[in-house]
Amino acid sequence: MSLHQSIDPSIEELLPLAKKEGIATVWDRHQAMQPQCGFGQLGICCRICWKGPCRIDPFGEGPQRGICGADADTIVARNVSRMMAAGAAAHSEHGRHIALALQQVAEGNYPSYRVKDEAKLKGIARTLGLDCEGKEILDIAAEVARRTLEDFQSQDHGKPCNWISATLTEKRLEKLAALHVLPHNIDAVVAQIMARTTVGCDADATNVILGGVKGALADYAGMVLATELSDALFGTPQPVVTSSNLGVLEEDAVNIAVNGHNPLLSEVICDVAAQMGAEAKAAGAKEGINIVGICCTGNEVMLRHGVPLAANYLSQELALLTGAVDAMVADVQCIMPSLAEISACFHTQMITTMDENKISGATHVPFREATATENARQVIELAIEAFRRRNPKRVSIPRVKQTAVAGFSAEALVGALSKLDPEDPLKPLIDSIAGGAIQGIALFAGCNSTQAVQDSNFVTIAKKLARNNVLLLATGCGAGAMAKNGLMTREATESYAGEPLRAVLTAVGEAAGLGGPLPLVLHMGSCVDNSRAVGVAVAIANKLGVDLDSLPLVASAPEAMSEKAVAIGTWSVALGIPTHLGIVPQVTGSRAVTDILTEKTRGLFGGYFMVETNPDLAADRLLGVIQERRRALGI
Amino acid sequence: MSLHQSIDPSIEELLPLAKKEGIATVWDRHQAMQPQCGFGQLGICCRICWKGPCRIDPFGEGPQRGICGADADTIVARNVSRMMAAGAAAHSEHGRHIALALQQVAEGNYPSYRVKDEAKLKGIARTLGLDCEGKEILDIAAEVARRTLEDFQSQDHGKPCNWISATLTEKRLEKLAALHVLPHNIDAVVAQIMARTTVGCDADATNVILGGVKGALADYAGMVLATELSDALFGTPQPVVTSSNLGVLEEDAVNIAVNGHNPLLSEVICDVAAQMGAEAKAAGAKEGINIVGICCTGNEVMLRHGVPLAANYLSQELALLTGAVDAMVADVQCIMPSLAEISACFHTQMITTMDENKISGATHVPFREATATENARQVIELAIEAFRRRNPKRVSIPRVKQTAVAGFSAEALVGALSKLDPEDPLKPLIDSIAGGAIQGIALFAGCNSTQAVQDSNFVTIAKKLARNNVLLLATGCGAGAMAKNGLMTREATESYAGEPLRAVLTAVGEAAGLGGPLPLVLHMGSCVDNSRAVGVAVAIANKLGVDLDSLPLVASAPEAMSEKAVAIGTWSVALGIPTHLGIVPQVTGSRAVTDILTEKTRGLFGGYFMVETNPDLAADRLLGVIQERRRALGI
Repeated sequence: MSLHQSIDPSIEELLPLAKKEGIATVWDRHQAMQPQCGFGQLGICCRICWKGPCRIDPFGEGPQRGICGADADTIVARNVSRMMAAGAAAHSEHGRHIALALQQVAEGNYPSYRVKDEAKLKGIARTLGLDCEGKEILDIAAEVARRTLEDFQSQDHGKPCNWISATLTEKRLEKLAALHVLPHNIDAVVAQIMARTTVGCDADATNVILGGVKGALADYAGMVLATELSDALFGTPQPVVTSSNLGVLEEDAVNIAVNGHNPLLSEVICDVAAQMGAEAKAAGAKEGINIVGICCTGNEVMLRHGVPLAANYLSQELALLTGAVDAMVADVQCIMPSLAEISACFHTQMITTMDENKISGATHVPFREATATENARQVIELAIEAFRRRNPKRVSIPRVKQTAVAGFSAEALVGALSKLDPEDPLKPLIDSIAGGAIQGIALFAGCNSTQAVQDSNFVTIAKKLARNNVLLLATGCGAGAMAKNGLMTREATESYAGEPLRAVLTAVGEAAGLGGPLPLVLHMGSCVDNSRAVGVAVAIANKLGVDLDSLPLVASAPEAMSEKAVAIGTWSVALGIPTHLGIVPQVTGSRAVTDILTEKTRGLFGGYFMVETNPDLAADRLLGVIQERRRALGI
Repeated sequence: MSLHQSIDPSIEELLPLAKKEGIATVWDRHQAMQPQCGFGQLGICCRICWKGPCRIDPFGEGPQRGICGADADTIVARNVSRMMAAGAAAHSEHGRHIALALQQVAEGNYPSYRVKDEAKLKGIARTLGLDCEGKEILDIAAEVARRTLEDFQSQDHGKPCNWISATLTEKRLEKLAALHVLPHNIDAVVAQIMARTTVGCDADATNVILGGVKGALADYAGMVLATELSDALFGTPQPVVTSSNLGVLEEDAVNIAVNGHNPLLSEVICDVAAQMGAEAKAAGAKEGINIVGICCTGNEVMLRHGVPLAANYLSQELALLTGAVDAMVADVQCIMPSLAEISACFHTQMITTMDENKISGATHVPFREATATENARQVIELAIEAFRRRNPKRVSIPRVKQTAVAGFSAEALVGALSKLDPEDPLKPLIDSIAGGAIQGIALFAGCNSTQAVQDSNFVTIAKKLARNNVLLLATGCGAGAMAKNGLMTREATESYAGEPLRAVLTAVGEAAGLGGPLPLVLHMGSCVDNSRAVGVAVAIANKLGVDLDSLPLVASAPEAMSEKAVAIGTWSVALGIPTHLGIVPQVTGSRAVTDILTEKTRGLFGGYFMVETNPDLAADRLLGVIQERRRALGI
């Protein structure tokens, strides 16, 4: 039964426990929700006004228009565009949060933070076209923050966001400008999508979708600025050996799980926990404090601190079922509301920290950047207090733990390559692609979903692509899936990579002093860090003098579910990247919208969505696209 | 049958015609959509991620949590908050559009526009705390635009929007600040709501709703700035005698219906049409060009130019069925997508004008402020061309037309009162309220909905309140309902007002030189102009030294349907105004959210929602609230 739900072996131990305790998990709720509403699944249910709800009859026998006159095309387009807007809002809210923090750090107001990576900040300043010559680092920080915040403030519809102009290829910028989809202001574009999709507004599906694409590109802007400024504040990830899956929880330690997406608090928790080991030991935790990560906050601290990753999205409840989590600390996004209820079945202290993201039943510790250290201490104290209440008899930590080599920021990747060619680090990679040792590059991104067997699509597709010599990158819950299932190891490279790919990964890994091949899948970070892969792709494209839609580059979100994933997938398409979805997107109630997303975008952007729920066939399609692109390049 | 759909008599002639021609109208589509989805009606259907759709079982037998763990409270709160965000986005997008136009006018870039009402602009500048002394009018315009655009740009979460700080009572600002619901930036707050309602974010219904209230207050900001700047650019409405209902269409004229909300184009169409009469006559239209209004664009030009109002929201299709509309010109919001299809059954040229609001099948004339005059000419030429194709045999204009006295801006109202007391114009009004000749004030706002008999709730409640000496204000489709059904006349005052109220309306009307009483219902403008009523209420409250929640003031949106109405209703509540809904809001699947909106808000804000679908009982409740407030004031 568990195989039907997840390939993660930790589930086998914990789901029976949940059943015994009468605790419902996400899979139980999925089961109870069957059958799910077909109108919603097709995207043809409209709830944007109180004349409705309206539902279009997919069989053509009942209503073909909603009460206002909107047809399936309009309804589907509006629904999916609003998902893009919501995704953009979520990522950019995270980005703004970091940008405002950087601004305050520059003004000396946030003692818990500093610019940890000055070189990165200077690099960002140069990317944004700022002159750093002779300037103090905090002045540069202030300038970078100011320039970044302009992307939330500009009222000049003709001038694209600074972060977009600075980070894409010239040709891509021209193409996007010609299609009028370049966002000038992230918030304004989110609001514009909401406005144009209210009752009686945009009722031309192509127009609505192009509006959504603009929102998705605003999502890209929000992501790239979040990632880059986080690197400046917290350090740019470098390869680190750590571990993953629920076996990273420790029986003899105060286990604090940091869950969510925004590293502002978790970074400080890592710092403060290092100083509070004695207090944990005094409470009886022989091993002190053990911070573990969940979801993308987990990825953030994994990459920068080597904190082990306990779970990705779908497994977050399982962490609680171990009975060994003393505090579950949530910031924003993808936090299951059920965590509060399940925590209450154990000794676990469920803590929310962001004022806009509370959960009924959780303890709220209002996080303020100005008092971050104090807030982190509060959180850790609550965890230690909970540890004292922990019932050892209810502790059941699965012995499931994989080594994971993580931390492949663009800089880390280029750094490793530079050991082969210090003058021209990208050359070995490009030569390998041209020569065929690397057939192409695939980025795995997106969520877990109960609509798929957890992690299975990721792992299946990855193995097949690797065997066919595709270089694999991963972020977010995709990265979590790869890490938990042992694909971020040199052993995986040895087991699964095609011979030529293995040779390249070995050469780079050894040159970089890793004493063996790079891992099979390179962990680039949280889901907001998908922009790192864009950075690598843009560098390659610029070096070759081509646009992104010429590269043998594909993306796959085989278990996508969040509105953020909808936004990411859409900007991926808009950047010219063929993008696989392993879940049927909720747009198929409109032939027009389905065609736009899977066909017409190809003509407009070069990128397009490919939907294939069978991972084996999906891998074949991705390989086919890579071959097609190689042929077009004459390689 | 028609009585079941609308009390508007024009329907009786036109619906049978539609039936004969096989043309479906909004009422047919409503009928075809029955039964509507009960999950959606209760607000307990969640479609914010692709694990779903999830539906909570309202009977408690099936799932009580969605797949992620969100319960009915969270789901309902998220859904309704997103409606508030969308409403805020729509109104503020309109407002931003006006603000950017004012900015360009100030820079001399838009030759089709000028500051028509310099006194109003100076008044706005003073309201916003700007010093106008010795400044040129265009410099003041630039300053006002800049200060207005700050409300879309500020990143200072601690400082409320300029337009909010400047237009509410001190006590109200304090109360809203204490509840952390004062928006600092309209776009940012819209984005924040979208972000906090994505999967795995805010899961505390009260917190989510308070986030939505912040969005609703951003909606207020967007509305007040849209209204006030429109007055500066296009003139502040003053009483004007015009007419309403479909009988305003003319057989011998080129009929151009302007439909939507944003006056930027329709203003110029009015100007240009005045110069193109000869061309229309040359095409055979003896009476030249006849501009008529629909929905809120109709209200905008009705108030400022005396353009007759042909229809409110639900009747817009009927206008086409007359066969006499040569061009239907749409800008933004509440434009039925069906108009394109129905136009195609006639000679009518269906024209969209805003790039973010196209309709499949319509002709798109891309409106640009810089070329507004040229665009208006294009539109009128298309109308004249269509007129040539008009089939006179298919023309069927109902002889239904009512006189309507419109144009009661706050300034116009105070102007009329000042004829009674030039020193202290509010005194006669306040004295009348204190003395009981006016028991209270009711603002009718919001849409038409097929969930009610069109216009019926408005008219029924208005008559009962008037009989009980309540001063009636109306905006939007509410104003349209009152106008079409003859309540904006002195005759209505004579027929329906209670004796003391009639005496006051007569005294004011006669003093103001109207030669008789004010109309029974005072037309304050489009739905974006609800802020005008707030202006009057704040002036009264400030004069009395009380807050808005002490005044015998109520609002009613008896046929609400749009997300904009959800936002308006919510800020009305947040401003302390008991607010009636004549449609059951889609929140009743959560007892918690229902309680928050109808009970808890009372403790927090003084305002609250009252739901009553029976208009007669609704009137009783509104009267009861007014009496309760009077008692509290000791009057």
